[in-house]
Amino acid sequence: MTQPLFDRVALIGIGLVGSSLARVLRQGGLAGEIVACARRQATLDTVTRLALADRVTADPAEAAAGADLVVLSTPLSAYAEIGRRIAPSLKPGAVVSDVGSVKAAAIRDLAPLLPPGVHLVPAHPVAGTEHSGPESGFAEMFADRWCILTPLPNGDAASLDRVTRMWQSAGMKVVTMDAEHHDMVLAITSHLPHLIAYTIVGTATDLEETLKSEVIKFSAGGFRDFTRIAASDPVMWRDISLANREAVLEMLQRFTEDLTALQRAIRWGEGDKLQDLFTRTRTIRRSIIEAKQA
Amino acid sequence: MTQPLFDRVALIGIGLVGSSLARVLRQGGLAGEIVACARRQATLDTVTRLALADRVTADPAEAAAGADLVVLSTPLSAYAEIGRRIAPSLKPGAVVSDVGSVKAAAIRDLAPLLPPGVHLVPAHPVAGTEHSGPESGFAEMFADRWCILTPLPNGDAASLDRVTRMWQSAGMKVVTMDAEHHDMVLAITSHLPHLIAYTIVGTATDLEETLKSEVIKFSAGGFRDFTRIAASDPVMWRDISLANREAVLEMLQRFTEDLTALQRAIRWGEGDKLQDLFTRTRTIRRSIIEAKQA
Repeated sequence: MTQPLFDRVALIGIGLVGSSLARVLRQGGLAGEIVACARRQATLDTVTRLALADRVTADPAEAAAGADLVVLSTPLSAYAEIGRRIAPSLKPGAVVSDVGSVKAAAIRDLAPLLPPGVHLVPAHPVAGTEHSGPESGFAEMFADRWCILTPLPNGDAASLDRVTRMWQSAGMKVVTMDAEHHDMVLAITSHLPHLIAYTIVGTATDLEETLKSEVIKFSAGGFRDFTRIAASDPVMWRDISLANREAVLEMLQRFTEDLTALQRAIRWGEGDKLQDLFTRTRTIRRSIIEAKQA
Repeated sequence: MTQPLFDRVALIGIGLVGSSLARVLRQGGLAGEIVACARRQATLDTVTRLALADRVTADPAEAAAGADLVVLSTPLSAYAEIGRRIAPSLKPGAVVSDVGSVKAAAIRDLAPLLPPGVHLVPAHPVAGTEHSGPESGFAEMFADRWCILTPLPNGDAASLDRVTRMWQSAGMKVVTMDAEHHDMVLAITSHLPHLIAYTIVGTATDLEETLKSEVIKFSAGGFRDFTRIAASDPVMWRDISLANREAVLEMLQRFTEDLTALQRAIRWGEGDKLQDLFTRTRTIRRSIIEAKQA
């Protein structure tokens, strides 16, 4: 690529996802200049040491000034405050995007704050690991995964196209959908699994000390996989749970009903019912393998 | 090893675990002769094709006749019937063992049936994958994992020692504990995770068709890991759920209480409570990594 996709990119928040995007932008020559913004000096020092950005600052307004693209990669609860701080310094025609897991809340918190002529393109690259911080990032994290864009009905087509091309350059398959629909799909594919993993690991944490040490020892029987998911960033997941409350509560309710039915089948020794459930669930696994998402 | 550990080993049931053990016995020269027993001719044909045994038979009594070690690797619900069928043909001094995930039920179903002079050594190699059948097995499956033996209070020390050495030869770390305690530990480390994974995948299975296809598409957000666990053998898990009913119901109850508390915290927007839970769970993950079980 001879001409960068964006002359100046400001990354507000530079943890696992933000720093992975920085690496993609660098490697692909997609940004003329990268400005990284984080609250903590230690994070900025790491970014400088890893040469992930051309400039670093703790001030979102300074980072956003003159940027052609501003990407928020912070926990969702920081969006409104960041929006307020960057709004006055955004240049006309700038694109504002994010990587958050709840899109209706992202739009609700950001859209009203942006000046006319600035284009909001909410994005969610569905990729990650259980690790946090700029040192955990890697450019290949996005490869072959989906990126969901939830453009506003009256959104700018050219801006949508540029954000699409950026994530495609990261190796992602890009789709667009309505923000509310995104939040419902993610509630079941991501938010519910995380909340359940956190809960089961919490249940184990409350066990008597002797039993707990054995749980750690014999975790290979299935528990281990849950602890990996439950090692994800706590603040990020607090914000996701609250920002997507309605959809998350709906899915938790469905899950709880199904778990109660399972519990009842075990109590009353209903083997056929159990076997039927345990057989049905294989179908979805096969579909995921066929969809090459396994 | 110049002298095999057992002159003749009968493997009753030769799926994922049984066939992996067959491979270990072969590669280590641990058995003078291996006899494999399965109900279905197709399974026996596969065993013959893969050269996993010296002889195959659909008759447990024939397999057990003259064997020095008989290992049950079938679903738990078959134990009592197999016990009845092999009892008359077991030779004095023979060792009977198994690989089941619930030890109190295994002892309850087998111990009363075995003739005097035959030694029961219940075993549980805590290793596996989500795949089933003799083609899925591999000798390395047991490496560095734990094998839990739950010997009877009046059990034969020499037999315990030989079974211990067999699993050590498979690369396992062997511990002994009380059967009831085993069942409680496994209820949380293995049975609860599997039941929860089956349930969440079941919840997704019941979604409207359009939403379901998107769940498959975007499963990389966490859901995917649950579908892997929920692809395990349905009959095996039906039997485990019922055989370990008391411990499983106790753990399901604790989990449900914790999930209800989480649901309530989300509903009432109690961010501090959520962040606290999501932070606490990281400790167990660190312990698992330190214990080299990650």
